[in-house]
Amino acid sequence: MPKLSIVKIGGAVIEDPKKLAVFLADFAALDGHKVLVHGGGKKASLWAEKLGIPVQMKDGRRVTDAATLELITGIYGGQLNKNIVALLQGMGCNALGLSGADGNAIQAIKRPVKAIDYGFVGDVSQVNTALFNSLIEQDISPVCCAITHDGRGQLFNTNADTIAAEIGKAMAAHFDTVLYYCFELAGVMEDLNNPDSLIKHITEASYTDLLVNNIISAGMLPKLHNSFDALKGGLKEVGIGSTKMICDNTPYTSITLK
Amino acid sequence: MPKLSIVKIGGAVIEDPKKLAVFLADFAALDGHKVLVHGGGKKASLWAEKLGIPVQMKDGRRVTDAATLELITGIYGGQLNKNIVALLQGMGCNALGLSGADGNAIQAIKRPVKAIDYGFVGDVSQVNTALFNSLIEQDISPVCCAITHDGRGQLFNTNADTIAAEIGKAMAAHFDTVLYYCFELAGVMEDLNNPDSLIKHITEASYTDLLVNNIISAGMLPKLHNSFDALKGGLKEVGIGSTKMICDNTPYTSITLK
Repeated sequence: MPKLSIVKIGGAVIEDPKKLAVFLADFAALDGHKVLVHGGGKKASLWAEKLGIPVQMKDGRRVTDAATLELITGIYGGQLNKNIVALLQGMGCNALGLSGADGNAIQAIKRPVKAIDYGFVGDVSQVNTALFNSLIEQDISPVCCAITHDGRGQLFNTNADTIAAEIGKAMAAHFDTVLYYCFELAGVMEDLNNPDSLIKHITEASYTDLLVNNIISAGMLPKLHNSFDALKGGLKEVGIGSTKMICDNTPYTSITLK
Repeated sequence: MPKLSIVKIGGAVIEDPKKLAVFLADFAALDGHKVLVHGGGKKASLWAEKLGIPVQMKDGRRVTDAATLELITGIYGGQLNKNIVALLQGMGCNALGLSGADGNAIQAIKRPVKAIDYGFVGDVSQVNTALFNSLIEQDISPVCCAITHDGRGQLFNTNADTIAAEIGKAMAAHFDTVLYYCFELAGVMEDLNNPDSLIKHITEASYTDLLVNNIISAGMLPKLHNSFDALKGGLKEVGIGSTKMICDNTPYTSITLK
């Protein structure tokens, strides 16, 4: 099967134009088929304040009301997405930006209201592999923002890490799919205060050990959860590390089932 | 040749959720292949004020500085575009939003600085017919916002009427292409104060007469200029009228060369 790289970048890279340019040059140079998934960053909160849209938090998580959804649809789906696409085009990479609504790329279901009503937040229910396949066959690199839809006219805010994992799982039947979670650290660290404590390889068995021994920081748990979910869905490998991991021998945390 | 309808809507429709929903239902029901092009509206100016981005006008025309470009890329390319796409998806129309950068759909050249420097404003230089053909063949309806790019990383603000005409000209070799300019009037009027004064048909010859006799309001001239430009580029007909003209026998101004 041909190879497909799914690369997810977060706010820290997106917010820094120099870092973003360096990363995008690496992404453009990456061999083979590729999909970019990007998160948001702090601009949504900055603009919300100026526009008088209150930032609602419940249990430390942002609640997406209608005004916030409108704002982040503009920032994630327009400003950030189109800027990234234009920069990639300028680097010879034929990028095409997608929200989940575009071509019905990614459908989601409104997160059920239990203890917390997160508002317009969606959990991915379906990835349109025919659309992704068609674009990839034309050597187009989809650039996905973290917005999905319900197929009935409603957009949703959706976690970008989860979107990347779901695209990976859906495409794993067609491609040797590798998922890269790029962020500000070199990978999963044994000790956040020790830059030399990178854990180079995690398997399902070693993950259990790490959890039992309380070695992994709480902030990493969702990424690792998504990683194993993706691996169980058919991916060959998930990498967690710096943006440099996609293009050279920079060490990162490689996650495999066994 | 198969038929292709290119429909352009402006701010007055987009800003009114009820009008927008009615129009989009008509667009979704329109037979055959179709492309939607949308303008912006007043939200950009409203948000610019709240965000402290000064609106710069020169000779009555908006100047697009970097902050304004960022803002409209968010509003046109994100907020409005994704909302329209999601609503169309909910109506069974497989829409996919595009800025000019996406898949290199529409390239432009920065408007040369003569008497006025319009800033980041681009004039269309190339439409990627292969991309539009590929989407249309998959029964996907492109939804284009009025943002283009230069292929070297720079986005531009571009007039939506012109984008619609340029897409029409580019696609006329592949399709029997009709362009519909939808706006708040019934069409080109002999007398703006008389709703019964619709001009039902304009040809190149009758246009000259109308100009000589000073019958056409100044605000209509750019649309008519774009219309004849599109007709000379191979389109069969351009319609100017209300949004209802696309789906029933509502009268409108039909423009043809002869």
